[in-house]
Amino acid sequence: MMAIHPVILCGGGGTRLWPVSTLSLPKPFLPLLGAETLFQQAVARVAGDAQFAPPLVVAGAAHADLVMAQLGDVPGARLVIEPAAKNTAPAIALAAALLPQDAVMLICPSDHYIADPAAFRAAALAAAALAAQDYLVSFGITADRPETGYGYLQRGEPLAGGFAVRRFVEKPDRVAAEAYLASGEYSWNGGIFAFRAGKLLAELAAHRPEMARLVAEAVAQGSNDGTRFHPAPGPFSAIAGESIDYAVMENTARAAMVPASMGWSDIGNWAALADAMSEVADDAGNIVREGEVNLLQCRGVLATSDGPRISAIGLKDVCIIVSGNEVLVTTRTGAQAVGKLPGAANQ
Amino acid sequence: MMAIHPVILCGGGGTRLWPVSTLSLPKPFLPLLGAETLFQQAVARVAGDAQFAPPLVVAGAAHADLVMAQLGDVPGARLVIEPAAKNTAPAIALAAALLPQDAVMLICPSDHYIADPAAFRAAALAAAALAAQDYLVSFGITADRPETGYGYLQRGEPLAGGFAVRRFVEKPDRVAAEAYLASGEYSWNGGIFAFRAGKLLAELAAHRPEMARLVAEAVAQGSNDGTRFHPAPGPFSAIAGESIDYAVMENTARAAMVPASMGWSDIGNWAALADAMSEVADDAGNIVREGEVNLLQCRGVLATSDGPRISAIGLKDVCIIVSGNEVLVTTRTGAQAVGKLPGAANQ
Repeated sequence: MMAIHPVILCGGGGTRLWPVSTLSLPKPFLPLLGAETLFQQAVARVAGDAQFAPPLVVAGAAHADLVMAQLGDVPGARLVIEPAAKNTAPAIALAAALLPQDAVMLICPSDHYIADPAAFRAAALAAAALAAQDYLVSFGITADRPETGYGYLQRGEPLAGGFAVRRFVEKPDRVAAEAYLASGEYSWNGGIFAFRAGKLLAELAAHRPEMARLVAEAVAQGSNDGTRFHPAPGPFSAIAGESIDYAVMENTARAAMVPASMGWSDIGNWAALADAMSEVADDAGNIVREGEVNLLQCRGVLATSDGPRISAIGLKDVCIIVSGNEVLVTTRTGAQAVGKLPGAANQ
Repeated sequence: MMAIHPVILCGGGGTRLWPVSTLSLPKPFLPLLGAETLFQQAVARVAGDAQFAPPLVVAGAAHADLVMAQLGDVPGARLVIEPAAKNTAPAIALAAALLPQDAVMLICPSDHYIADPAAFRAAALAAAALAAQDYLVSFGITADRPETGYGYLQRGEPLAGGFAVRRFVEKPDRVAAEAYLASGEYSWNGGIFAFRAGKLLAELAAHRPEMARLVAEAVAQGSNDGTRFHPAPGPFSAIAGESIDYAVMENTARAAMVPASMGWSDIGNWAALADAMSEVADDAGNIVREGEVNLLQCRGVLATSDGPRISAIGLKDVCIIVSGNEVLVTTRTGAQAVGKLPGAANQ
């Protein structure tokens, strides 16, 4: 089997893990779990492995230096600089246009955490095998709770190493999410995909011809600068941004999925980080991520500080985040609203 | 009637309102409510009023400079520097020994808040009238909740402008506190007293002869330095520290009380400060004392910062205190345990 081409996406803002994550230093580039950043972990998952070609990283100009600094010495790695943030479909299409058309590409968001890299690798190989047969393959993350913050995939007929996708569903309400979980037929759509590059571009041309045309133009008029590629800003900026799910996955007749149970978390907010760190919690469920912290009569508290000491009494299921000149205190439930705070929204 | 001699006590540690209150800058010297510090408010309550003589301030050496700086230009004010912290009985006895023996002294703690100075003044005049008749008079603060953190006074026979005290009771348990509140016979012992100086010393000599002897010796061997008086450290340090309640009030046959309904609070912890600030709370009961604060879906939150911005989501009845290099987050209920935190305990 030919090597899989990892495409590492570095888009996304910096609001939901504010104040640690900011527009200038967003989630992928932070060491949220462990010593390496999420971006470095994404790179490491596909590095030094003959099954994977060197990665193609897609990032905005604001983060190009961060990418280069954190990428380190990965032979053959390339960087595509997006002239504008246009969501995932144009970013993926750029990569597809730059790869050999028969290459299988593996779309790797760099703002997710995966606890079990071996399970990731196994799913990637299964997905690549289906992609080589011109399926457009999603990782179907095993759902373990009725999460209303993710899209879902419903499994259809079995395929070798996976399943056809019967349908994609957008973020459901609580009742629907509970029904999905109970049915056993649904997985989370984690935003990890495998495509044959040419097949992806053909599907894009079929369902979003204007986007396909503008991406092709941006690549044709683009310029190389060492290992960096700069698509032409004119045509790229003219694209109507859209996710790959909307633009392609929900429209194709060839959608497939591979089940993936790999300790995945999108670390979508501070409560999700606390969940992902649960194995380092003490007997009361408290987690100290960084800094000097004293907790009295607390349960389920996540505390992290880059400077001042944190002291807390009597709290339950609360996250305390001290970073720079900001102090954030939120319930776990409230954590999903962090992006609405003036500090996070007005960066 | 002769002028009342205010004795302003500046003892007490800095643990329960930590981290804003510290050993080096304890509660009396902080502007906790309003622009003036509690000490300045205590001075102002008896200043510029012909009923009151200039104050005698009793403080530890560590706080002498704070006292002088915050006292400002109060003609005739004197400062007694305690060589050691020995609780209230020796501090009050020092003042009594330095005043004319027929002077009526009014003991004013400087770490309490009084919302209604006019009511305080009226109670002080009533107390002084009883003290002039050689009663040892406590202010009986109107109890409005079954507080277990205070001592109580039980009213006895009526006297002119007050009542005899039937008994003093130590901090009760919840059941007892509720019974006291329901009976209508009990008031809080707020630590505000009026005595004739000579009478106080005579009672002390009767009930605590050794303390009375050592205080007399410390005064006799003490030295003046401008408006400051330094009791002799040798005898004073030999005193076994004790509260005026234990040493005298619970033993005398001449205990009296004047009812005082004056918006009193000892601001004993952050929850008490929140209560005392309730009139500046917003519709959700949130109070921003200082700093830039954004609250989302919060109720009953007190937030104060001397620097970093505070953002909070989803909290109920929580105090968030940011001061210097410390961040404290406590439930209102947990606020009474602040002194047990390492930061507060190990100053």
